[in-house]
Amino acid sequence: MSAAARNYIQIHAERFKEQFKELLSIPSVSTLESHRADCERAAIWLAEDMRRAGFHKVDLLDVGWHPIVFGEWMGAGPNAPTVLVYGHYDVQPAEMADGWHTDPFQPVERDGKIYARGAIDSKSNVMAQLKAAEALIQTGGAPVNIKLMFEGDEESASGNMSAFVKANRERLNCDVVAICDGSMADREQPDLAYGLRGVVCMELEVHGPKQDLHSGHYGGTVHNPIQALAEIIAQLHHPDGSVAVPGFYDEVRTPDETEREQLRRALPWIEAEWREVAAAPQQWGEAAYNLHERIGTRPTLEINGIAGGFAGDGFKTVLPGKARAKISCRLVPDQNSQRTYERLRDYIQKITPPTVKAELRLIETGEPAVIDTNAPAVQAAVRAYETVWGKTPFFVREGGSIPVVVDLQRELGKPMVLFSFGYKGCAAHGPNEHVYLDMWYKGMTIMTHYYEELKQRITG
Amino acid sequence: MSAAARNYIQIHAERFKEQFKELLSIPSVSTLESHRADCERAAIWLAEDMRRAGFHKVDLLDVGWHPIVFGEWMGAGPNAPTVLVYGHYDVQPAEMADGWHTDPFQPVERDGKIYARGAIDSKSNVMAQLKAAEALIQTGGAPVNIKLMFEGDEESASGNMSAFVKANRERLNCDVVAICDGSMADREQPDLAYGLRGVVCMELEVHGPKQDLHSGHYGGTVHNPIQALAEIIAQLHHPDGSVAVPGFYDEVRTPDETEREQLRRALPWIEAEWREVAAAPQQWGEAAYNLHERIGTRPTLEINGIAGGFAGDGFKTVLPGKARAKISCRLVPDQNSQRTYERLRDYIQKITPPTVKAELRLIETGEPAVIDTNAPAVQAAVRAYETVWGKTPFFVREGGSIPVVVDLQRELGKPMVLFSFGYKGCAAHGPNEHVYLDMWYKGMTIMTHYYEELKQRITG
Repeated sequence: MSAAARNYIQIHAERFKEQFKELLSIPSVSTLESHRADCERAAIWLAEDMRRAGFHKVDLLDVGWHPIVFGEWMGAGPNAPTVLVYGHYDVQPAEMADGWHTDPFQPVERDGKIYARGAIDSKSNVMAQLKAAEALIQTGGAPVNIKLMFEGDEESASGNMSAFVKANRERLNCDVVAICDGSMADREQPDLAYGLRGVVCMELEVHGPKQDLHSGHYGGTVHNPIQALAEIIAQLHHPDGSVAVPGFYDEVRTPDETEREQLRRALPWIEAEWREVAAAPQQWGEAAYNLHERIGTRPTLEINGIAGGFAGDGFKTVLPGKARAKISCRLVPDQNSQRTYERLRDYIQKITPPTVKAELRLIETGEPAVIDTNAPAVQAAVRAYETVWGKTPFFVREGGSIPVVVDLQRELGKPMVLFSFGYKGCAAHGPNEHVYLDMWYKGMTIMTHYYEELKQRITG
Repeated sequence: MSAAARNYIQIHAERFKEQFKELLSIPSVSTLESHRADCERAAIWLAEDMRRAGFHKVDLLDVGWHPIVFGEWMGAGPNAPTVLVYGHYDVQPAEMADGWHTDPFQPVERDGKIYARGAIDSKSNVMAQLKAAEALIQTGGAPVNIKLMFEGDEESASGNMSAFVKANRERLNCDVVAICDGSMADREQPDLAYGLRGVVCMELEVHGPKQDLHSGHYGGTVHNPIQALAEIIAQLHHPDGSVAVPGFYDEVRTPDETEREQLRRALPWIEAEWREVAAAPQQWGEAAYNLHERIGTRPTLEINGIAGGFAGDGFKTVLPGKARAKISCRLVPDQNSQRTYERLRDYIQKITPPTVKAELRLIETGEPAVIDTNAPAVQAAVRAYETVWGKTPFFVREGGSIPVVVDLQRELGKPMVLFSFGYKGCAAHGPNEHVYLDMWYKGMTIMTHYYEELKQRITG
């Protein structure tokens, strides 16, 4: 049955790619209100393509902000397992000024890759899932029932997904959850993630004088808010790279020796990718942990943005009234986002000198998650990757966050698989984001095998 | 003679104000290339008004960037002293987003004040000089010869003035230099500045990974450039508020007890102004020096701007490839701008960790200056202020910088007076910059008295 689907993928490869480019050209930036209509446009595009693919029931679900595109194909019948596939169609902001070589929303194909915002994170995943389903449905039907759920708020931390999942347990009812929003550490050696970090996003604002001042008239008598902010930020880490916030690591679960051994196996690939993509002068971070452990098993505190005064071309001798920084923490089990925010807030209050005022605001959160690698649903995925890649995938712990994972785990209580098809060195969130087309097609093929493997292991 | 001029000022007060507003509405922002034509427009406007005022010889002098407006009125004859008046018509950048209540380039009159960029710094000074000269020339002639020199690059640190002054000693030949670009610490008690700080403007850039990264995928393994920049900035001051750069204070000349006593006299006014305008939660700075000493006699290191990553609305979980800060030092005699830059550069190299690269670039400089308060040219000014204000002005040391002062001192070797007419609490360089009209008219009147006083003390 799925051999025909794989044949269909080959025959329609060119059309699939053109459709992928069409979706990439819609700037569905969820965090910017100015792109609200674009997000809606992307959702409508996906809904129409689901209908064309043969999904019986396709809905745009209003969750208060950007809609969820939800499609159901239940043609495998009540005795076959049902898979709920999660993906997101929204993307991070992107500007030419960030260092893009071509317009981030005019996809360019070069050397077997497509360059565009969302190419790797995560429209390639959404399209691989949709096209795998189309191939199966159009060639006699899939071996399992498929529910596709593509959200539009992931890059703004899924503020509404939590409530949605809680309120829609019936609609989301399934036997396996397939999360499709990751990427692999290598182009030759596949891996499967079994852990995700949580995230808590915050904004720190430091106020000094009541307005911007002339730095000649007041310099040396006012605690410069940029300087005060820098002095606060400099106290957020110890010299050994660990986070200096009291209690920050209290709930961190340390992997046992078996897991550490497993993590070490993928280490050379992760280090090679780091050298190629990050390419900083030297590695940095907690000395007691190797690179894979730092990324996957350790929490972080990161400064994602900073602004204050006049930083454009030229020079303005201003002593600014305020300065601000965007700060996020990546969290690991069993840390909690709210508790982490409160600890940081209290610590910053403690270290803020009386010469300025500091305020830390919570913006958005997502909790960390780890899944059981021995579950049949995960083992079916291992088999599908082996079939397509000719290699057993490594198990890895991811540094990124997919907030909805925790909600789905808690509300549905069903086994979960974290699929990755693309390569991590593809500049997700950065300029010149891209995807390797060969890996993208492999992703579709993996799904056709996966559904077959799953049907042999699980019943509906 | 000058009584007629003061009458003329009263009669033409309304027209003077409308002309002042006209000049304020030209956005002559010298540091932004996009405003080059506006600077030229302001220069032409001034040249035309000089001609209307009766100046014999008016030129726009090309100094490589924005022109100098130069006007000569030599009608007092060779036996009368010649005064070279310096001012600048360019202004700092200004955007509504900085907190302006009205368009910075559409002057608004309210409660006896005019709000606009350049209202206090320094178009009010330029116009007070020009209108004082007009009043004298149009009512029988001034008691001294007057050369007006208004430059257009002061707010971008007078890059070309130094060479211009050197090459134009003949043209600038005079008996007294009147610098007109300051403001006073109080609205009721006039003061006269006798010291100016120098300035050295720099940009610090910190590079980490070769591009922006996903903070989930790489967070905790890369030294975040914003964090590294903050850690460097936090090491630029000691906890006692002094600058931590080795050798920074080596050449600082400490005022003697007589001068410190003189500075203490103006302290209550300077403190009152600080509380009203700066209004930070607490004073900050070198504990061993009082507020007036910190502003006028001590050098500073200020962070004028900072930028890195994504700091706009929403949140972007980026780990940026680089971050930068604008840094300036205010200098006092006998510090030197180049030596100060080199010391900071070397110190930053020393404290930059191997996980990032840091580069400090020199942008622009101006040297510090102190003038002799006993010179007859200065005493003539004291008398003119007394006549108009009914109070003896305090002598103060200014925190700001006027780079050309040092060039004029060195090349012409003539006595110099630092005139201030406006109030320091008028948001120079900040949003809602304004000027008090009563003080502005007093400024014109002071000049008519000054020229008379000067003629009695000095011959040409």
